[in-house]
Amino acid sequence: MTTLVFGHKSPDTDSTGSPIIWAWYLNEIKGTPAKPVLLGEPNTEALFVLNHWNLDKPEILTDLAADTPVVIVDTNNPAELPANINAADITGIIDHHRLVAGLETRGPIEINIQPLACTATIMYQMIGDDWTKAPRGVKGAALSCILSDTLEFRSPTTTDTDRRVAKALAEDLGVDMTSFAAEMFAAKSDVSSFSDAELLRMDSKEFDLNGTGLRVSVLETTSPAPLLARKDVLMAAMPGVAEEDGAAQVLLFIVDILNEEATLLVPNDMVKHIAEQSFGATVSGNTVVLPGVMSRKKQIIPNLKM
Amino acid sequence: MTTLVFGHKSPDTDSTGSPIIWAWYLNEIKGTPAKPVLLGEPNTEALFVLNHWNLDKPEILTDLAADTPVVIVDTNNPAELPANINAADITGIIDHHRLVAGLETRGPIEINIQPLACTATIMYQMIGDDWTKAPRGVKGAALSCILSDTLEFRSPTTTDTDRRVAKALAEDLGVDMTSFAAEMFAAKSDVSSFSDAELLRMDSKEFDLNGTGLRVSVLETTSPAPLLARKDVLMAAMPGVAEEDGAAQVLLFIVDILNEEATLLVPNDMVKHIAEQSFGATVSGNTVVLPGVMSRKKQIIPNLKM
Repeated sequence: MTTLVFGHKSPDTDSTGSPIIWAWYLNEIKGTPAKPVLLGEPNTEALFVLNHWNLDKPEILTDLAADTPVVIVDTNNPAELPANINAADITGIIDHHRLVAGLETRGPIEINIQPLACTATIMYQMIGDDWTKAPRGVKGAALSCILSDTLEFRSPTTTDTDRRVAKALAEDLGVDMTSFAAEMFAAKSDVSSFSDAELLRMDSKEFDLNGTGLRVSVLETTSPAPLLARKDVLMAAMPGVAEEDGAAQVLLFIVDILNEEATLLVPNDMVKHIAEQSFGATVSGNTVVLPGVMSRKKQIIPNLKM
Repeated sequence: MTTLVFGHKSPDTDSTGSPIIWAWYLNEIKGTPAKPVLLGEPNTEALFVLNHWNLDKPEILTDLAADTPVVIVDTNNPAELPANINAADITGIIDHHRLVAGLETRGPIEINIQPLACTATIMYQMIGDDWTKAPRGVKGAALSCILSDTLEFRSPTTTDTDRRVAKALAEDLGVDMTSFAAEMFAAKSDVSSFSDAELLRMDSKEFDLNGTGLRVSVLETTSPAPLLARKDVLMAAMPGVAEEDGAAQVLLFIVDILNEEATLLVPNDMVKHIAEQSFGATVSGNTVVLPGVMSRKKQIIPNLKM
């Protein structure tokens, strides 16, 4: 039975590229038949990466059959996985997020979670000397994942290990990281074709703040202007998205990758209060700039208060 | 704040020795102040191991203060840990059991779970070249953990990695594994001082079989005769232990390490039925011998049916 390798439901570059890397490793090195799949449409950066490295776009999984062997990458959160995930035969988990109660395995399996910026960095260590056998596309996917998750080493989640691995891959591939990252970020910033609701859900995590359900959404971009120009309609779309998703409020942080700051949209007093309590911000008007804030995992979620 | 390192509530050799190994590593190699502690009285084999390698018996933790940094080893099951475990700051998990939903971490941390026989084998790999700096007691603890969890390589949970690591440690220490393991198993077999209820709980895991709560207890011994001589009183003690622990039934498997078989006590028709359904056994009388059965994890739990 073919092992399916997948990340979370909102495939960014890491959740698109890491399954490709690991399925290659299982197939070619471990001799375990495996296939990368996606749990949703990849974002524009991930599509650029697939295209750039001539990688096939993995199939989108619509139905996970019970007992299917699966390797879960880039998440361990059942809310970000198929509803029946525990009916599958989970044979591996590789991730870099906090442990969230929910997944159950049938027997002892290999679980490797590390406080690194990127799943691909963990895989790089696990694959070790076998990287010499990897095709260019697999190496390119790994480099892309790291540049994406670290925002080219600007994110405070970046570790020396992520930096070292990316550098080794870039040298091996003969890629200039700065110009390649700029192309990736330009692709990610091209979100003009998405609806307001799509933008609010594009890179979003549910977070329970003392019983209040928040949808914490981040849009990383090198061009904040077009997004900020849409702020009124984005805010108008928030109540509907929140209600549909069973949350009390959407928080939207527009992360300016190059200027290393986030702008939080402030549609109401609840978000104003959250901004003041969480980030010590002084809010006047319906946006607030949070200098240096780039990482939901490291700077936003751990500081949320109300 | 000192990091506490502990295993599960019924400390066997691995849950006693692994915290000692990891606290040494954190203190001496990583520069993180750490202390091994126990969540209960170690069993007779673990006490022998501490004494043999001149290791201090770790303090028994009675109260886990909120926000204490902790590393959890040899389990990831909240039922085997302090009730308020998620109020602690879990900074690492090293384990070789199936993932059970329950633990939550505050941020991304290092979690290393592998399908090996023993926690100490995983630590051996993680510590790498720094093993040369380990004192004799720490190396001895690691060897003891592996010999204990693999039943000197007889258990089907044993992997080539466990075997290789144990061999390397034994050579380094100048220890004859066979005679040392015999001493350990003799210590484990000396259970005459324990009450019936203590024996039923000594090495026990809760397991939910389609809604029926079972306490699946194993006694590994090189001398099954004295235990089998107590079978009537052990069976008489089962209903009381089951009721106190909120289970429907205790299953007691007496594992004969040298003859590589288990004897299951059969106090009633429910257990008779489980024995027949799970192991294809023909039961007549109040015990049944299960040839080759040595591992709860690999051979008992996965086969339980009723």
